Amino acid sequence: MNIDAALAELTIVLGQRLSLSKSDLDLHGRSETHFPLTPPDGVAYPETTKEVSQIVRICSAHRVPVIGWGTGSSLEGQAQAFSGGIIVDFSRMNKVLRIGQADMDCTVGPGVTREALNRELRATGLFFPVDPGANASIGGMTSTRASGTTAVRYGTMRDNVLGLEVVLADGTVIHTGTRARKSSAGYDLTALFVGAEGTLGLITEITLRLQGQPEAVTAAVCAFDDIDSAVRCVIDTIQLGIPMARIEFVDAATAAAFNSYAGSQLPECPHLMVEFHSSDTGVREQAESFGEIVADHGGKSFKWASKLEDRNALWTMRHNAHYACMASRPGCRSMVTDICVPISRLADAVNETRADLEAENVTGPILGHVGDGNFHAVLLFDENDADEVARVKRVAHRMVERALEMGGTVTGEHGIGVGKLDYMPAEHGAAWALMGRLKAAFDPKNIMNPGKLVPPRND
Amino acid sequence: MNIDAALAELTIVLGQRLSLSKSDLDLHGRSETHFPLTPPDGVAYPETTKEVSQIVRICSAHRVPVIGWGTGSSLEGQAQAFSGGIIVDFSRMNKVLRIGQADMDCTVGPGVTREALNRELRATGLFFPVDPGANASIGGMTSTRASGTTAVRYGTMRDNVLGLEVVLADGTVIHTGTRARKSSAGYDLTALFVGAEGTLGLITEITLRLQGQPEAVTAAVCAFDDIDSAVRCVIDTIQLGIPMARIEFVDAATAAAFNSYAGSQLPECPHLMVEFHSSDTGVREQAESFGEIVADHGGKSFKWASKLEDRNALWTMRHNAHYACMASRPGCRSMVTDICVPISRLADAVNETRADLEAENVTGPILGHVGDGNFHAVLLFDENDADEVARVKRVAHRMVERALEMGGTVTGEHGIGVGKLDYMPAEHGAAWALMGRLKAAFDPKNIMNPGKLVPPRND
Repeated sequence: MNIDAALAELTIVLGQRLSLSKSDLDLHGRSETHFPLTPPDGVAYPETTKEVSQIVRICSAHRVPVIGWGTGSSLEGQAQAFSGGIIVDFSRMNKVLRIGQADMDCTVGPGVTREALNRELRATGLFFPVDPGANASIGGMTSTRASGTTAVRYGTMRDNVLGLEVVLADGTVIHTGTRARKSSAGYDLTALFVGAEGTLGLITEITLRLQGQPEAVTAAVCAFDDIDSAVRCVIDTIQLGIPMARIEFVDAATAAAFNSYAGSQLPECPHLMVEFHSSDTGVREQAESFGEIVADHGGKSFKWASKLEDRNALWTMRHNAHYACMASRPGCRSMVTDICVPISRLADAVNETRADLEAENVTGPILGHVGDGNFHAVLLFDENDADEVARVKRVAHRMVERALEMGGTVTGEHGIGVGKLDYMPAEHGAAWALMGRLKAAFDPKNIMNPGKLVPPRND
Repeated sequence: MNIDAALAELTIVLGQRLSLSKSDLDLHGRSETHFPLTPPDGVAYPETTKEVSQIVRICSAHRVPVIGWGTGSSLEGQAQAFSGGIIVDFSRMNKVLRIGQADMDCTVGPGVTREALNRELRATGLFFPVDPGANASIGGMTSTRASGTTAVRYGTMRDNVLGLEVVLADGTVIHTGTRARKSSAGYDLTALFVGAEGTLGLITEITLRLQGQPEAVTAAVCAFDDIDSAVRCVIDTIQLGIPMARIEFVDAATAAAFNSYAGSQLPECPHLMVEFHSSDTGVREQAESFGEIVADHGGKSFKWASKLEDRNALWTMRHNAHYACMASRPGCRSMVTDICVPISRLADAVNETRADLEAENVTGPILGHVGDGNFHAVLLFDENDADEVARVKRVAHRMVERALEMGGTVTGEHGIGVGKLDYMPAEHGAAWALMGRLKAAFDPKNIMNPGKLVPPRND
């Protein structure tokens, strides 16, 4: 790689919008989790697809790595420049470009955040449902195949991206998908770029499916005696086809963390947090059916939140779970695991993880999007306590092994980046090599976010 | 290609299950539509994945084309051996291998038909919703990214395939996806093989998402004064978020064809045929809301079909539409077009097509899955009337052009095969070349269903 030549040419294209300041490089070298600081060689702030194409052409000519950056909220090191190169920060490509009211779709720049998008949509009667908690960028969410609390009802980014504009590794600009709701016209390139973590190209526009704002919304939280009862309640709810908009699990430790962080007064036992979206009658009927299932499993302390501010308080508390857990042990660091299993194995997966945490004496509140079979443990540790670090790593490793044994996946929504690269052979077998061939066909010089997701190359 | 050597080796592996009889070759050389008879060099009937792998290895060694065959119901020549080679007929790999009651999923061989699958599922309370009309095989439906009448509610094959077993072009067997409901672990290879029309590998097992049989089902048919009113009724229904299980449009010509073919007594005007799946209350509420929208658009002659036999009669009539249209002009042939547009453009697309049919004096009943913006015209012609053939081709061509101008796709569900290959550059631009590179990376010898879907190769 000839970084100096690349930086010189990039400056001609971008002027002040190529940043080399130490503070900016450091800001784009950090992650939300436990990866070390890895400042890139430069940070580019393009404003148009054409500029992104020029950046990639220059980097290709000089074999310089190119890594996309949304808001930096990814959890497995996806946006870090571990082998140097240029971070392409999409924060200036943050416009909602088109809202199709009649077609219930929109096209946005990659730098638009999900909260900004929903603010723009508010007056239209539409909303974008995917909600990973963090106020991530749509480009980043697309690249990580993000999901979150509402996937049980509205699907993940896989289900909500209709089409893309992508700059390929040689600077070519392509468009995938159409504005039609479905197509059988060739390979599903849209699905291929969703979740590719920027290793196949840089996404410069995203066309999204939108939903009508529901006529009625209500939410509730209810308590259970044990994990089993809560999880079995989820399974019954899914099987009965009640169209939950959200169904979230938190364990006793998470409830305790909420109480001290958010001032809630939850009993310190497992809880489900749910939300219904429908007509007035529909919400009532769904809530009644759910209430019966809860009662069957000994659920209690049912608290309804029909008012917007109560619901906001509930979901803000849920979204801040990571911070609440961190605050429960001041000065600690965290490893946030993310596995997803078939729903029939969910109770086993949570119980065995709980038992393992106790056996290893690790603090790890468990919570998750249980309607999808997806859950996290927030494993807390003192980074100076080598023994505790080792125990945390063992627990995390066994969670992943357990997910695979149960027919599940090593990551439901956080992605691979570098953090879970070592598990790819176990999950995919021979298909991982195929992913490598696919990457090589799209990016022969290996400049698009190299070192992530696919088998390492030796060139 | 060294076909004799390949046939000799295949006979050793398959014995009598390699068929070279003229009748069998002819049977596997035909299609449901207007493509000429193209008998392959042999038809293989494997019973195991291992045998499929052996077949592909032998064909690879001798550079012999390999084409998968389900039930032969594809409409764009996808399963025909235009350059010779071996047809792999999956009819003996027709077992439902696993039903996951609790996880609402199942794993099947590619030769299982959708009707056979639903018969096996009947006692479980689950069903597989995707319904393209024809009793196609699940392998074929996966490879064509099929959809049909229920996609508006349950999605297409893209949304309902959780994972695959695939034999690659060198005989390697891979597994894609997991039994978890979602994953962020690497490239979405499942989505890549869905709709690839056998050009990237042969699918030997499919894991499908299933749905709970709805508590209550009701269907209805209602008449409209004109196309516009019917289509605007669909748009309003979708925008109000009424979760229709089916919403199908037929025009006056199709209604007339139904009357003579199926003995129905529909007024000869445009109709919508709808179905609701929900609880008793839900169905009632949805039907009421829909009824109000219908009334707003001057709809009338509402006929409800709450009994199973009445619903079956209704949907059998719909599924036989192609035959009904053909029968309306004895001795004719048909070209069945398939375009999909953004729903906001649906009324324009249907009206302009209707006007074009009249201007060209072509008989072409219009019908379709309008909830997705997808519709077909069954263009009837006398194959000995060169002028009529030319007029039909012009109408079909302009339908495709119109779909692209409106931001839609050249095929919503029938696929590309060879029939729509010429439109791929117009729909995909530079992305079509990328599909070719992808194909070359997966199938360097170009033996997997060559000549279909991707840019032709000159080797």
